[in-house]
Amino acid sequence: MSSVYDAEALVRHRTSKGKIAVCPKVPLETKDDLSYYYTPWVAAPCLEIASDPAKAYEYTRKCNSVAVVSDWSSVLGLWNIWGLAWLPVMEGKAILMKKFANIDAIPLVLSTQDPDEIIRVVEAVAPTFWAINLEDIAAPACFYIEEELKKRLDIPVFHDDQHGTAIVILAALLNALPLVNKKLEEVKIVIAWAWAAGIATANLLIHAGAHHLILTDSKGVVWPQRTDLNSYKKALCPYNTFCHACTLPEALVGADVFIGVSRPNIVTTEMVRTMGANPIIFALSNPNPEITQEEAFAGWANIYASGRSDLPNQINNLLAFPGILRGALDAQVAEITMDHKYRAAQALAKYVTHPRPEQLLPNPLDKEVVNVVAAIFSAHNS
Amino acid sequence: MSSVYDAEALVRHRTSKGKIAVCPKVPLETKDDLSYYYTPWVAAPCLEIASDPAKAYEYTRKCNSVAVVSDWSSVLGLWNIWGLAWLPVMEGKAILMKKFANIDAIPLVLSTQDPDEIIRVVEAVAPTFWAINLEDIAAPACFYIEEELKKRLDIPVFHDDQHGTAIVILAALLNALPLVNKKLEEVKIVIAWAWAAGIATANLLIHAGAHHLILTDSKGVVWPQRTDLNSYKKALCPYNTFCHACTLPEALVGADVFIGVSRPNIVTTEMVRTMGANPIIFALSNPNPEITQEEAFAGWANIYASGRSDLPNQINNLLAFPGILRGALDAQVAEITMDHKYRAAQALAKYVTHPRPEQLLPNPLDKEVVNVVAAIFSAHNS
Repeated sequence: MSSVYDAEALVRHRTSKGKIAVCPKVPLETKDDLSYYYTPWVAAPCLEIASDPAKAYEYTRKCNSVAVVSDWSSVLGLWNIWGLAWLPVMEGKAILMKKFANIDAIPLVLSTQDPDEIIRVVEAVAPTFWAINLEDIAAPACFYIEEELKKRLDIPVFHDDQHGTAIVILAALLNALPLVNKKLEEVKIVIAWAWAAGIATANLLIHAGAHHLILTDSKGVVWPQRTDLNSYKKALCPYNTFCHACTLPEALVGADVFIGVSRPNIVTTEMVRTMGANPIIFALSNPNPEITQEEAFAGWANIYASGRSDLPNQINNLLAFPGILRGALDAQVAEITMDHKYRAAQALAKYVTHPRPEQLLPNPLDKEVVNVVAAIFSAHNS
Repeated sequence: MSSVYDAEALVRHRTSKGKIAVCPKVPLETKDDLSYYYTPWVAAPCLEIASDPAKAYEYTRKCNSVAVVSDWSSVLGLWNIWGLAWLPVMEGKAILMKKFANIDAIPLVLSTQDPDEIIRVVEAVAPTFWAINLEDIAAPACFYIEEELKKRLDIPVFHDDQHGTAIVILAALLNALPLVNKKLEEVKIVIAWAWAAGIATANLLIHAGAHHLILTDSKGVVWPQRTDLNSYKKALCPYNTFCHACTLPEALVGADVFIGVSRPNIVTTEMVRTMGANPIIFALSNPNPEITQEEAFAGWANIYASGRSDLPNQINNLLAFPGILRGALDAQVAEITMDHKYRAAQALAKYVTHPRPEQLLPNPLDKEVVNVVAAIFSAHNS
């Protein structure tokens, strides 16, 4: 793992010593500035907020402030390495939020991986922020942490690895299905694996109308007879209407859609050949997918998406989270709901004027995308 | 409390919606930028840090990052109002850190005032930061919280209300005493009250050589016969060598120095007249001091300092904390010690070329001050 790219990445990071800084939004040149922005007259906005907490959105940075919180329990496919090591990823997320959505995001790497401790810590630091972006927290703890924080906090809590991924997958699928003359309500979908992104994707697809859906995990197909299922997996068992066999290859027989958010090379050309006609393959394990585009096309698939930027149809969270958070901040919603996510996926899909097999999604660097997604919050409120 | 100044402060805060933003330190214009600063090549600095945690200082913003943490238990003399109301003060602190010391500081208003919970929360978020600036936490919890965090963390923890104030007071006193031909070792000092700043000032003065020192609190003089003293007050009793009476007026009789970090109007001209010849009066309660300059000079004092910017000798923490934190960050010390604080006070005092009764301290807006203070860390290390 020491390529010229790695070397260049190291030089770049060393030169800048991190990717985000804090900047003043106001001048601090005169004694007057100091008096108004600090002591003694800063007391005026303090007292306004004291009399009406909602005024924090008018007088402070809270209105634009997001904490990117991680316990580093699940990152980038590199497992169980020391927490602070993930700070470059989280700073990366913060500059993306700034660049694409003008959000002031601060990374908080936590020194604990205990779910209840994480909940308490996030709750304790929450007053300063207007949204919490959970990042790289492993399943199933991520579900419990997010649910519990949503109950306790009056600001949006968004686990991007779950919902950002799910939104972009649904958007791509909404544009892919008409190309093969199939309907979301009718297709058989296989999702590997039932981790954070897999479970969130399943739930969002079901909300969008999917009825036939199987998840797999490292032990094979998730189905009710298994005794080792957590409640999140169990809740999805009723949607397994078409396969009571045990393995991923068995599940794929006759399926219309494969969605991989798992590990490299778990699907073969032969397996794709057993799927229904014109199968749709989303192989998102990154940088090495569950099956390569070549291998998928060597089966009878001709719609393929992945996490890779060098191929068409990159399923990139960047299409979702900046707009979701920008919209949630501007509309000051207390929660990002399943319906917000569904309509974000629809908006993304619709933004592609003429979907084609090699263009299911907008370009992640298209700066209009954030507005398209954010607009679903204001439309909802009006 | 609704003056033209308040109105202007409100307009200014509303216009900017807060005083700090997050800014990218690197370009994010091309797909290459995205690859190097985010996925996939961001993994390179992550792995470097994983193999050697100290490299976080090279590759991330940690090297310049300070959390300004408050539980809002003691702020600005305005008591017990809702936590988030203090965010404007903390943002003010953050812009001062940026402006004077180029530090990236982030305010964290906590939703808990339980000392053990605060300790756990700060410990949990600490990995991202290279120093913790505690702010506006009331005594005696502030002492316990700071002590405990110093034990648990390997980064500097600095409670500015204690130590920033103590450093600037000592600096002013070091320049004031020669003007009245007195020595720190010999003078009788009275400090009102024995809260955060008072106790920290007492400890720093003792470290600097003071032998005769009385603290008072709302119940009068702190002396060993009292049964209601916390351990921090008790530890200072041995320095009360000159007064076993009960009240502040009694304590002031024959004293050489009065240091007020307490409440307005607790000292009168008559009390000053009972003090030793040429008494030194530091009346720092803000905006209304323990005794006004006029009233002090109407006694036989002619050296007076206060917290006010419209009078000479403003005891302003801005003289200390930017340099202390800049120096601690650059020298990567694990702790800000009593000796660092002592030498910071000496450096500040020495920076005034010709101290006079109306010029005991540097101008807080003098941008060289931060370097003068920060230098004591590098001098110490070399």
